[in-house]
Amino acid sequence: MPVTSKPEPLRLGLAGLGTVGIGVVKIVQQHADMISARAGRAVVITAVSARDRSRNRDADLSGYAWETDPVALARRDDVDVFIEVMGGHEGPARDATAAALAAGKDVVTANKALLAHHGHELALVAEARGLALRFEAAVAGGIPVIKALTEGLAGNAMRRVMGVMNGTCNYILTRMESAGLPYEQVFEEARQLGYLEADPNLDVGGIDAGHKLSLLAAIAFGTRVSFDAVELEGIGAVSIDDIRLAADMGYRIKLLGVAQMTGRGLEQRMTPCLVPADSPLGQLQGGTNMVVLEGDSVGQIVLRGPGAGMGPTASAVMGDVIDLARGLRIPAFGRPAASLAAPVAAATTAPAPYYLRMTLLDKPGALAKIATCLGDAGISIDRMHQYGHQGTQAPVLIVTHKATRDDMAHAMGRFAATGVLVGAPVAIRIEEV
Amino acid sequence: MPVTSKPEPLRLGLAGLGTVGIGVVKIVQQHADMISARAGRAVVITAVSARDRSRNRDADLSGYAWETDPVALARRDDVDVFIEVMGGHEGPARDATAAALAAGKDVVTANKALLAHHGHELALVAEARGLALRFEAAVAGGIPVIKALTEGLAGNAMRRVMGVMNGTCNYILTRMESAGLPYEQVFEEARQLGYLEADPNLDVGGIDAGHKLSLLAAIAFGTRVSFDAVELEGIGAVSIDDIRLAADMGYRIKLLGVAQMTGRGLEQRMTPCLVPADSPLGQLQGGTNMVVLEGDSVGQIVLRGPGAGMGPTASAVMGDVIDLARGLRIPAFGRPAASLAAPVAAATTAPAPYYLRMTLLDKPGALAKIATCLGDAGISIDRMHQYGHQGTQAPVLIVTHKATRDDMAHAMGRFAATGVLVGAPVAIRIEEV
Repeated sequence: MPVTSKPEPLRLGLAGLGTVGIGVVKIVQQHADMISARAGRAVVITAVSARDRSRNRDADLSGYAWETDPVALARRDDVDVFIEVMGGHEGPARDATAAALAAGKDVVTANKALLAHHGHELALVAEARGLALRFEAAVAGGIPVIKALTEGLAGNAMRRVMGVMNGTCNYILTRMESAGLPYEQVFEEARQLGYLEADPNLDVGGIDAGHKLSLLAAIAFGTRVSFDAVELEGIGAVSIDDIRLAADMGYRIKLLGVAQMTGRGLEQRMTPCLVPADSPLGQLQGGTNMVVLEGDSVGQIVLRGPGAGMGPTASAVMGDVIDLARGLRIPAFGRPAASLAAPVAAATTAPAPYYLRMTLLDKPGALAKIATCLGDAGISIDRMHQYGHQGTQAPVLIVTHKATRDDMAHAMGRFAATGVLVGAPVAIRIEEV
Repeated sequence: MPVTSKPEPLRLGLAGLGTVGIGVVKIVQQHADMISARAGRAVVITAVSARDRSRNRDADLSGYAWETDPVALARRDDVDVFIEVMGGHEGPARDATAAALAAGKDVVTANKALLAHHGHELALVAEARGLALRFEAAVAGGIPVIKALTEGLAGNAMRRVMGVMNGTCNYILTRMESAGLPYEQVFEEARQLGYLEADPNLDVGGIDAGHKLSLLAAIAFGTRVSFDAVELEGIGAVSIDDIRLAADMGYRIKLLGVAQMTGRGLEQRMTPCLVPADSPLGQLQGGTNMVVLEGDSVGQIVLRGPGAGMGPTASAVMGDVIDLARGLRIPAFGRPAASLAAPVAAATTAPAPYYLRMTLLDKPGALAKIATCLGDAGISIDRMHQYGHQGTQAPVLIVTHKATRDDMAHAMGRFAATGVLVGAPVAIRIEEV
């Protein structure tokens, strides 16, 4: 902290001049003095790269060297920290990140896909060379959740990590409820509003949020990132009926990520779940993100904030940059990558209550047959509700006590043989939060 | 990150063996391997101090040297980091902390009172010697808010910092609402449950929460801690009537800390405020804490978690310890203490809507006279509600549009002269969150 000579500026090379990249430029330019006061040294951009130099970008880039090739940017002698905000988990983003590490540069990236697929190997390379690989902006946008988990809660054995980490999905689900509209219509609205990725399945299929969950799980449980082991289920099958009926019973449906270490191994899920409507997760509206961190000493910490956008994502990038300017150097996943265990994926999930919706033929004994299937599978019923007849059919809601997914699948497999079911039943896990 | 020789353990001297101190012992003992993996070196306790050695403390302290005098502990050669969890802002806590810095030890403290009163001078001493002074546990218990503000959001010019940071007050206010009980009765309950400090005014007078707010304000706005400039108003005057009526209008009453830099200077308030019942702050129940951080790039970040207790507070202490073990060294308030500006306290507060409750004589023109007082002070009325007569008296609620505190005081000063008021009116600020 005592400074004997003026320290050298930290020099950034910025690869990617889309929304996030321009956000970083704006912060560096507008807050140079504040950042210098906080970081103890100046932070400057020396060079940038993007494919199209002629595009109007609403920022003065004239003071920066220009590279068309991000790999060339990553190798420049006047770059100390390579910032990767291009996106894409193969091709230029991967090549340039690898080139930066090979050239001895620290890396800050917002690229969840890159890290979910190659984070472990990149961290190994970085740490073998004494370099930093940081990615606060890759998870939950502006929320400093990587820092909270890796540093602030480092004294805790983590018990469970949960999150609503795709704002588009949460927007769609909350809009379905508030406007009473079906999924397809709200999906189309979201597309027209520009909320969806070019490949919408990244959002609504849970892939983007699954990437983020796999990164949190690696830090929380000291295991190698294993995105392939994340159980993924998108929101495309969530019906407005289920949203309404869940609300009637005091729940909301969220695309919820859950990671926990169980006696059977590491469980990672990104699936629609019911959560209590009056819980922080249940109350989360629109595009906002929320992460819940549960540790053995601290109990439950809830972090809420914007999960995307120019300002929030650039804020997270700059948090990492200022850490590096201050000399903070810790392993990417909070302990040396070489020490991360290969995770054993849990074959099944921890038991939970389930929400079951089905339509029964309106004849004597129909409900008893369903109840018997559940009982035979060892599943007891907490609440049941028959909500009006539709001709000869009776819609029925059941909330079960805790059951394993296997037991639930077993029971549901026997529903068909009862001959009293109309159409397919819906089962959604209720996460206790 | 590459380790050529096994690094030395980080040696802790722990002053204070109350709830928090024993919590620290438990984490260090139970999670030695995990902490070593995360910190890159072992973290051990070498010596402890407390007044009474004979007391049974539910932890094995036999491996640690014992000092009765915390100053002696602070000076021990086998201590690298002095952990102060004794409490009290003068006497042993202050002396021992100063002694530790004088002896070249880093300091981790949970002592908000010490820092609110002497944080600036202690930080100056620490930084002049290249030492760290860290205090995550001093604000909002287990929530890593100091880290979020100082590091994660360091790229933001902060706009406003808010918080519900005294769990006892929030417990009392939410219990008053849920049970419909008056303040005095719930206060007595809280006392019997052991929720209150020995001097209850530290809790219900807003002093403890005000200490915390002053620390957040210093970091957020780059100013010296100035607890004396915090406007303090406790919860003792909050009536069950106001809690009920506020709820009817969609609000909850919270002891809310707000710090913001305005054109007129730094505003720091710890006062009862109305907040929307459906906002995260409004939904906060019981003893949980919440901090809201608003930055120019990130927007609004909300952090929620346990504000007190053995595990949460020890978790925060250990976050600081692991930072030090990893070599993180940043100034206590996020920029060099010598560069912190002397804050100019704002003479008044930013304009806000107000909740006004009063009882009027039930005679023609009474309400018009009150409305005239408000109008003459430039205050317009958003909503008004007369809620039933009580004999010749008419209780009236008014929600105003934004007004300054001075204008509101001016208007209320003129109420008496109207001759239509029964008793004293109640005015509570509505904080827009």
